[in-house]
Amino acid sequence: MSYTETWSGKINRKLIKKLHIIDVAAGREKADLVLKNATYVNVFSGELETCDIAVAEGLIVGLGSYSGVAEVDMTGKIVCPGFIDAHIHLESSLVSPSEFVRAVIPHGTTTVITDPHEITNVMGTDGIDYMLAATEGLPMDTMFMIPSCVPASPLDESGANLDYRDIDSFFEHPRVLGLAEMMNYPGIISADSDTVAKIVASQAHHKKIDGHAPGLTGYDLNAYVAAGVYSDHECATAEDAMRKLRLGQFIMVRDGTAARNLEALMPLIKSPKYFSRCMFCTDDKHPSDLLEKGHIDYICREAVRMGADPIQTVQVACLHAARYFLLNNRGAIAPGYLADFAVVEDLKDFHVVTVYKRGKLVYDQGQVHDFPKPEIPAHLNAKAHDTFHLPVLRAADFAETRSKVVIGMIDGQIITEDLGYANAINLEEDILKMAVVERHKNTRHIGIGYLHGYGLKEGAVATSVSHDSHNIICVGCNDADCAFAVNRIAENKGGIVVVNHGQVIAELPLEIAGLMSDKPLVEVNDLLEKAKAAAHAQGVGNGIDPFMTLSFMALPVIPTVRLTTRGVIDVATQQYI
Amino acid sequence: MSYTETWSGKINRKLIKKLHIIDVAAGREKADLVLKNATYVNVFSGELETCDIAVAEGLIVGLGSYSGVAEVDMTGKIVCPGFIDAHIHLESSLVSPSEFVRAVIPHGTTTVITDPHEITNVMGTDGIDYMLAATEGLPMDTMFMIPSCVPASPLDESGANLDYRDIDSFFEHPRVLGLAEMMNYPGIISADSDTVAKIVASQAHHKKIDGHAPGLTGYDLNAYVAAGVYSDHECATAEDAMRKLRLGQFIMVRDGTAARNLEALMPLIKSPKYFSRCMFCTDDKHPSDLLEKGHIDYICREAVRMGADPIQTVQVACLHAARYFLLNNRGAIAPGYLADFAVVEDLKDFHVVTVYKRGKLVYDQGQVHDFPKPEIPAHLNAKAHDTFHLPVLRAADFAETRSKVVIGMIDGQIITEDLGYANAINLEEDILKMAVVERHKNTRHIGIGYLHGYGLKEGAVATSVSHDSHNIICVGCNDADCAFAVNRIAENKGGIVVVNHGQVIAELPLEIAGLMSDKPLVEVNDLLEKAKAAAHAQGVGNGIDPFMTLSFMALPVIPTVRLTTRGVIDVATQQYI
Repeated sequence: MSYTETWSGKINRKLIKKLHIIDVAAGREKADLVLKNATYVNVFSGELETCDIAVAEGLIVGLGSYSGVAEVDMTGKIVCPGFIDAHIHLESSLVSPSEFVRAVIPHGTTTVITDPHEITNVMGTDGIDYMLAATEGLPMDTMFMIPSCVPASPLDESGANLDYRDIDSFFEHPRVLGLAEMMNYPGIISADSDTVAKIVASQAHHKKIDGHAPGLTGYDLNAYVAAGVYSDHECATAEDAMRKLRLGQFIMVRDGTAARNLEALMPLIKSPKYFSRCMFCTDDKHPSDLLEKGHIDYICREAVRMGADPIQTVQVACLHAARYFLLNNRGAIAPGYLADFAVVEDLKDFHVVTVYKRGKLVYDQGQVHDFPKPEIPAHLNAKAHDTFHLPVLRAADFAETRSKVVIGMIDGQIITEDLGYANAINLEEDILKMAVVERHKNTRHIGIGYLHGYGLKEGAVATSVSHDSHNIICVGCNDADCAFAVNRIAENKGGIVVVNHGQVIAELPLEIAGLMSDKPLVEVNDLLEKAKAAAHAQGVGNGIDPFMTLSFMALPVIPTVRLTTRGVIDVATQQYI
Repeated sequence: MSYTETWSGKINRKLIKKLHIIDVAAGREKADLVLKNATYVNVFSGELETCDIAVAEGLIVGLGSYSGVAEVDMTGKIVCPGFIDAHIHLESSLVSPSEFVRAVIPHGTTTVITDPHEITNVMGTDGIDYMLAATEGLPMDTMFMIPSCVPASPLDESGANLDYRDIDSFFEHPRVLGLAEMMNYPGIISADSDTVAKIVASQAHHKKIDGHAPGLTGYDLNAYVAAGVYSDHECATAEDAMRKLRLGQFIMVRDGTAARNLEALMPLIKSPKYFSRCMFCTDDKHPSDLLEKGHIDYICREAVRMGADPIQTVQVACLHAARYFLLNNRGAIAPGYLADFAVVEDLKDFHVVTVYKRGKLVYDQGQVHDFPKPEIPAHLNAKAHDTFHLPVLRAADFAETRSKVVIGMIDGQIITEDLGYANAINLEEDILKMAVVERHKNTRHIGIGYLHGYGLKEGAVATSVSHDSHNIICVGCNDADCAFAVNRIAENKGGIVVVNHGQVIAELPLEIAGLMSDKPLVEVNDLLEKAKAAAHAQGVGNGIDPFMTLSFMALPVIPTVRLTTRGVIDVATQQYI
């Protein structure tokens, strides 16, 4: 649409398409594409049906007997609506949106709803604009929820501090569906004006508000729901989910890399009464997880393996997210709906063989069909590649003689323990220097503490992926390698490094906002796995993911003690120690 | 909201209410109202639950244990969300919207979606404005679908001829939800531009489009659904409904005065798979039917009597219409939802004992609490009371010497048969003079024919309720009484009359657009029943509703022959005979 288009011009433009759609549906004109003899999942009746599926103008127009300019025989396969991920932070894949799309199309994903929370913590609203531009016109639709909590905590030093007015204009964007996960549930429950105002404004725009409130009950949950939070993706138990479902929330059953709730929530998916309030999401998907397991197809496979009805599972994977987000022409195979198809071999393994997006073949025979990358405005691209604003550091910047808290890592978990004080590195006792270096606004803030349980024996490890503010976290066996690692990340414009004796041993540059790479997912995964191996070779324990576990050490909302750019925080009291 | 309110002013105004809601939900402040020990229907979980329901700012804010400024014990009763009628023409009740509301509140109806099709055929878009004004602020919410087919047929002479542009500005109104029943399905299927443009424009405003397509199948149904029609309320068989449900349409299960489909559609209501795509509607409710049977409560009672699950029935009666119309804060009892309650004695008889609207008691102990009538702008009120534009007629205006078609009425049906020609009234053979008198634009058009099967033996009967153009239909035993009856209707500004020998025997004035009375429903019903009795006393057969059956005789879309202002129509060929 051009901005100078008149209203009658717009109606006429749409009318011409609509008349063509009607002519094809009525059998008077040939379809653009017909899937012949297609056994498809009817998400409205909950049945498998077999007939031709006719497509015109990118939409499904008829179910019956049709002929088309292109015809593809679907005998023996099952056609599902394209899968929908109801909540994902694309940045966690460590690749650009284009490369993410290339990675998930083979898994039948045709729509995701993303919350660009990570890049917005780095770039502020320019991060939202960047992601909107970077997802425009891709062969998978990316809809947006606008980050509600930037920064995640007032103790964080992130790249931006957004109030309701900062994000207000985004609600006019056709791909923006609402306000993303309201993690600051204490702020809502305590009726904090600035926090509640974001919900009020999103409602005033008639938009959705997603929730994030693990384990909330009673008055607190009532207050949170009454405030206007319509969904939750943090349910770790069926009881937690049922409490929320009963109060009217939609349940996003999350099964991603960092958190996996499908098994616990199977009672809802299996119930003929409750499943209609459920949808699937992944929240975060790391490269190896995407490559090895898949995406929503993987969740479907797991759900059916654990006893879910296959057709109910497809309804959860397609229709329910579409209805929740008011995307009323997707998630189903019916006239007027987008011709987004995930063609699978069966409803047991959900092995995807062919994928169509708006009637265009985008994946078959193991190959994603090539597509142009979106053009990103120069000022946004420049800004996304210039997010490190800190001086070149020296070993002396990491020196510290006063006692500092020792943060204890726990194998396989992201909570920590408070292990008292240390005043020096002690490799024999696994006491390492940890630093969080402010990198957004050149404040020269460097928070210093000690880490136990990581296991590093030589050199240093650092990453600019550090939730949620994405300052640089560094753990080292000596101050010189700490400084070298942090400087290297700044040189690379972001990413992760493993260094030793002033040499880079392994690294993964993440040049987009310090969070994502422009390289393909396979290459990124390869560099990441090499870096992990290097970190383990330098001593990091096998029970620890060298970078992911580290990435949570600066998030001052997870118990028990965390390190920020200004020092160690007692999470319970929210005080500096 | 004032038109000079700033955005921040609006957000702040809503924020103040929201903070109060949160404070009450969190248990820090007293609720405005608490329904104590309330057993309520949880439409999300499909279960009965018992707890306190707390209300503040007109909304439900908490479910649990609460105290309030007002507390009402609900022990032994069942609290349902207020009932929703998904499709009704309010004009068919023959009373003003205020009086309609007074009549249905005792039945637990708190929201209706109306299509002001009748008054719009008389007054054009001013009719829509009139109905919007006449429903503003009432203790039952009236949402609107904008008439799609005015006139219903190009052969009709109605008061207006509306294209997409005429109705376009109504989509901005907060109570307008979309485009009403697209009855012109032949126009859609044949891809008629002017007809399809109305759908395209409604979609461009992100609004709903309701359907009306009895028995459509195959390519025609595909074309109709692909065009963008999202629902149907004309399903007379379960097969018809399932065909539409499978193609993605929502099914409005209609059970009103003129058409009753509940029994036929019980297989859908009883199915745990299909009921979630169903909602209830009445389409048309005449005065005696409203008084004797009730409204949506009556449909619930009948559905349960015929074997539906009671809780599924409440879900159909409340939640599903709300979700279809994107009224996302009604149809359920949960925090953030409107405090609209229909309190019933049980889920078998659905006898309503108390009704709350936005937390205000509006009905109890058999009494509707008084409410102010909406103020209707003077120009609209004047226009609604000045819709008869025709000359004073004389007997000679009804004289006709040429042969005219005899239209045959069939007992208990609204279809007619073609009985050849007559050239004079013949009471012994039940050949009566019938006339349709144009009354909108002073065109002096009077269509003349003959009617068989009505049974009138003396005088004349006339009505200004004549679908869909609402010209004056008159049937008489002599030309002088025909002229007298039509003149009397014009004097009364509309309504129905029974006359004999130049005297009014009985009459019901309908001074609002010739369709509705300002009197209470009981008085209107009383006058209507007296008029019916008078018509029967003058000979009208017992198998005939003297006015309702007559009101369809001018609708040139129902087989086989009809009389319009320009003469008799062969419905199949759409030609004048």
